[in-house]
Amino acid sequence: MSSKTESGNFFEDFRVGQHIAHATPRTVTDGEVALYTALFGPRFALNSSTPFAQAAFGLPRAPVDSLLAFHMVFGKTVNDISLNAIANLGYAGGRFGVPLYPGDTVSTDSTVIGLRQNKDGRTGVVYVRSTGVNQQGEMVVDYFRWVMVRKRDADLPAPEPVVPDLPAAVAADELLLPYRVDAARYDTQRAGSPHLWDDYSAGERIDHIDGITIEEADHMMAARLFQNNARVHFNQHVEQAGRFGRRIVYGGHVISLARALSFNGLANAQTIAAIHGGRHANPTFAGDTIYAWTEVLERQALPGRSDLGALRVRTVATKDRPGADFPYQDASGAYDPAVVLDFDYTVLMPRRG
Amino acid sequence: MSSKTESGNFFEDFRVGQHIAHATPRTVTDGEVALYTALFGPRFALNSSTPFAQAAFGLPRAPVDSLLAFHMVFGKTVNDISLNAIANLGYAGGRFGVPLYPGDTVSTDSTVIGLRQNKDGRTGVVYVRSTGVNQQGEMVVDYFRWVMVRKRDADLPAPEPVVPDLPAAVAADELLLPYRVDAARYDTQRAGSPHLWDDYSAGERIDHIDGITIEEADHMMAARLFQNNARVHFNQHVEQAGRFGRRIVYGGHVISLARALSFNGLANAQTIAAIHGGRHANPTFAGDTIYAWTEVLERQALPGRSDLGALRVRTVATKDRPGADFPYQDASGAYDPAVVLDFDYTVLMPRRG
Amino acid sequence: MSSKTESGNFFEDFRVGQHIAHATPRTVTDGEVALYTALFGPRFALNSSTPFAQAAFGLPRAPVDSLLAFHMVFGKTVNDISLNAIANLGYAGGRFGVPLYPGDTVSTDSTVIGLRQNKDGRTGVVYVRSTGVNQQGEMVVDYFRWVMVRKRDADLPAPEPVVPDLPAAVAADELLLPYRVDAARYDTQRAGSPHLWDDYSAGERIDHIDGITIEEADHMMAARLFQNNARVHFNQHVEQAGRFGRRIVYGGHVISLARALSFNGLANAQTIAAIHGGRHANPTFAGDTIYAWTEVLERQALPGRSDLGALRVRTVATKDRPGADFPYQDASGAYDPAVVLDFDYTVLMPRRG
Repeated sequence: MSSKTESGNFFEDFRVGQHIAHATPRTVTDGEVALYTALFGPRFALNSSTPFAQAAFGLPRAPVDSLLAFHMVFGKTVNDISLNAIANLGYAGGRFGVPLYPGDTVSTDSTVIGLRQNKDGRTGVVYVRSTGVNQQGEMVVDYFRWVMVRKRDADLPAPEPVVPDLPAAVAADELLLPYRVDAARYDTQRAGSPHLWDDYSAGERIDHIDGITIEEADHMMAARLFQNNARVHFNQHVEQAGRFGRRIVYGGHVISLARALSFNGLANAQTIAAIHGGRHANPTFAGDTIYAWTEVLERQALPGRSDLGALRVRTVATKDRPGADFPYQDASGAYDPAVVLDFDYTVLMPRRG
Repeated sequence: MSSKTESGNFFEDFRVGQHIAHATPRTVTDGEVALYTALFGPRFALNSSTPFAQAAFGLPRAPVDSLLAFHMVFGKTVNDISLNAIANLGYAGGRFGVPLYPGDTVSTDSTVIGLRQNKDGRTGVVYVRSTGVNQQGEMVVDYFRWVMVRKRDADLPAPEPVVPDLPAAVAADELLLPYRVDAARYDTQRAGSPHLWDDYSAGERIDHIDGITIEEADHMMAARLFQNNARVHFNQHVEQAGRFGRRIVYGGHVISLARALSFNGLANAQTIAAIHGGRHANPTFAGDTIYAWTEVLERQALPGRSDLGALRVRTVATKDRPGADFPYQDASGAYDPAVVLDFDYTVLMPRRG
Repeated sequence: MSSKTESGNFFEDFRVGQHIAHATPRTVTDGEVALYTALFGPRFALNSSTPFAQAAFGLPRAPVDSLLAFHMVFGKTVNDISLNAIANLGYAGGRFGVPLYPGDTVSTDSTVIGLRQNKDGRTGVVYVRSTGVNQQGEMVVDYFRWVMVRKRDADLPAPEPVVPDLPAAVAADELLLPYRVDAARYDTQRAGSPHLWDDYSAGERIDHIDGITIEEADHMMAARLFQNNARVHFNQHVEQAGRFGRRIVYGGHVISLARALSFNGLANAQTIAAIHGGRHANPTFAGDTIYAWTEVLERQALPGRSDLGALRVRTVATKDRPGADFPYQDASGAYDPAVVLDFDYTVLMPRRG
């Protein structure tokens, strides 16, 4: 066989400090935005309407949904980082920088910041920091991620373990806020809800009510749109003999569905400023119906800002089970079997003027 | 549960004269246009080609398909008007105004113009007039609609019934015609048919021959593209226990398929000027194959216009039954069980120079 | 029935020398590009990133994928040439001209260059040359194709047979090369592979490893995007009673999947310059998982060009069978039953500076 085919990196191919400039740079256009809307159904006004983005936020035009930017940046890392991954273990310290606009081009670079072989000797955990930038080199999104990756050769010795100290959360004063809200021109009726930052309180739980059933065509189109080439999403011929007998839905697909569903209850949460952590508690498959509910973890004032506040929230997505009774974990911390996503992040919301 | 979640309006939440400014304003781009083409397959030259729109119609660029504009305007009304609707009873008096171009932003407002509780005491009919405008406030589409909506509390007394007097049809001299055809530059070969307005006559029936099978992914992507969040389209987990055991296809999806199929026989019907009435005679589901046929109801000259004429037509869509023998109604007016759509509207077509 | 419905041309409707100006001219935008990415998953840098296209190729912006241009040009021919075709017999002499950019409008014209009735008296072979041009009349893609078409009336006499002499291949000095690579600014890491033209050699075989399963929604959306209205792709109600009991996937869909898969091994093959021949060895259906492998047939230097070289390659796509052992033909030339596509074409790749 030609040596030109890549089979992806295995655990022993990574070195702490290694820098990876990922393929493929991508110009994100109005086309990607429309597809994102068609695949997930978000209705947030900031991303839907250029006049709204101009009037209420003083932006030149409607920016791309935070999660579309995230998936574009993330998608590029798959071929180098996680093609031989068994599990996506977690995210931390995710911060969003400059808004991404249609016409901008994103590139992603990663640095390996930790490695730890597992006791079984056949797998190990790879920790990376990945940064997506636009064509001016400005940071769009920056995050830590760790994945369990197979070894090609189980007989190779384990590397010196390096486990990075990852942030438990992004603090409110570390958030990047390239937005300023003109309260007088922020139309809550067009935005879809009268509830602003001041109206939420820690401990409040919101059932987003609606459910969306996933089709194979949906999640494969989304992953291809993001140029995310993880094999488990695409190949039924292989997966039918695999652990689940089916293709696995990209975890980010569920994040985007949950965020879109959260419009009902969080319509003014116009953008995501940080991702503190994310766990895919169970796999998701075509045919599953995704529901979501959110708990407000903390209402955070932002230093020097009276226009905008932050809400740190946990959104939990479930499959084939409504969120009315807020299914989550049992006393031992084990997830309810219906839970597919536990997502801890910060949204920005206008304050009362 | 948080009071921030909306469950939609029930019959008793509406008042005659009530004005509703719907969320979410939406910038419609080339992305939406491409998706519309991919989901429905229209081939009309005016919407497909900017040089054609410029040469033949003197427009700055190809406008968005009339029905894409309609669905965008309609989609916004669902969350406020029909989230608790049992049935979409009808449309009337629909007029298209200025063309919608990629880059334009549409918003929708509705006024409640009638209310009538049903005898069962648990439901009522809500009549609204909805108007979609572009970012300059110019009317894009304006129509009446009535829906049957559930009461939250069956014990509440019925409101004073108000049943509006709706137009049976939009007259030819009420049509808005922001188009002028340059006959010398209208290329019938590129448009796909030699048959112009002069060639059609009242009573003529046209079988559009082809059929298109609907997939779940198709109709859900379309409804999300239109930000139409009616629950019955998306949630198999709930619908499997419902009346049909399946998700229901958005009625507008069938309208768009029928219009796209009508290209074969009506290729020069470049745009829709009015919607007189529409009835979804039977529900449509994924797996159904949609066929369509059209009857010319009236050929209408337009006051002061020799470039363009109007055809009032009825397009009937059927499922799993070709239109060759024009299935419609029996002597009692009952629809053939294969009929899913009875759509009465006016198209504009160039006249012989 | 109205005579305005077209049933497509039958064998006896064609005349040698006949010119056909196909409907519908089409403005190709960023929307089509995003959908192409979502449907097929290509990751070639030239088409993905405007800064890459500018820096490495000196182009004004990222051009549209060669095959998206091809499908747009081809799609228009279906209604006139192959609506009553039984089989798409082959392609030859395909050359790509000027790059197609988002915003450009393509139109297609065909000339009938040959006719030969089959011995059965009920079908015949139609040979056409089809040319797609942009809004300036510049050639985008030009190719020969022959199809087997039904006769409407088997009793009609056979026309004088005319069988054109089609080119076995497009020679290297006939390729059109409106690209110039700036080797110093061509970033192989961002492009996804260190392997350039110099590194490939005739006879080399490359397994592209990955497989993609096709859904009904995928291939129907693609065909509608291309305004390709061949009936066999869309109508399950008719096809369930047909030869295969299922809708047939557009052959070009498999070509695009195979090309996208070929990124793994041919990432620097940024564009297609010629199509020498293509054969759809077996039909493809939804549910099939497509794999691909490529053999380098010839490494061709280009006259006067040190920046860019050509590789003539054969890409073979299979269904439900990986390409690791390069399934192709047996000693008699019969295709392995897993083979669905045998595609002979020329790609352009940067040379070492």
